[in-house]
Amino acid sequence: MKPTHIEHIGIAVKDLKAAISYYENILGLTCYAIEEVTDQRVKTAFFRVGETKIELLEATSEDSPIAKFIDKKGEGIHHIAFAMPDVNEALTNAKENGIQLIDEKPRKGAENLQIGFLHPKSTFGVLTEFCGKNK
Amino acid sequence: MKPTHIEHIGIAVKDLKAAISYYENILGLTCYAIEEVTDQRVKTAFFRVGETKIELLEATSEDSPIAKFIDKKGEGIHHIAFAMPDVNEALTNAKENGIQLIDEKPRKGAENLQIGFLHPKSTFGVLTEFCGKNK
Repeated sequence: MKPTHIEHIGIAVKDLKAAISYYENILGLTCYAIEEVTDQRVKTAFFRVGETKIELLEATSEDSPIAKFIDKKGEGIHHIAFAMPDVNEALTNAKENGIQLIDEKPRKGAENLQIGFLHPKSTFGVLTEFCGKNK
Repeated sequence: MKPTHIEHIGIAVKDLKAAISYYENILGLTCYAIEEVTDQRVKTAFFRVGETKIELLEATSEDSPIAKFIDKKGEGIHHIAFAMPDVNEALTNAKENGIQLIDEKPRKGAENLQIGFLHPKSTFGVLTEFCGKNK
């Protein structure tokens, strides 16, 4: 199975409002949605660039994965999400090939998509998400 | 001016051959080119995912920007390149809006494209490239 496109690029920021202003005014993009994902303790802002979305991520709590990421590495690119025709099958296939998973089964992510993460230890340092529509 | 799409995502790796194997065997992508960019002291491997390319970057020398990046942050996502209709105009516009540039004028990058980088200090931690065809 291969991805159809890059679904989104997740970017960790400290100040969502300031970052939205940069992406709108310097890059000419339009923020079309702001959404809070409570179980990840993040607030997200979405922009479209061709078939890909930019997803800015601001922590809403100190124990958010995004707060921990920024403490360790600073602001910057957090993950890449590949659009997969079948997220469950893609995760299973990765595991069978020795890849360490963060999510053994798909779970619900932003925009009501099915998502699952691979561990960056197995993916050459890139936090990698598989992402797809509900079946 | 707004970007038409994400032209590529640059990913810093220690071992190009091992990383190519992961992107081919786990993600199902095909490496369609390997190119050395001598002035950046990197060897690159390219994969297509929809309208975007994944560009793996391995340092060919200890003073390569990629070697320095890996020393500091480890392997992982290095930069995002936005496809811009006019790289020179996009750089000028960013500078006029107070963005710190790495490249004041476009220069030649991989695949014979015109490229220019914005400094991550001005772009919320994301090393950002503008990228376009020769005029």
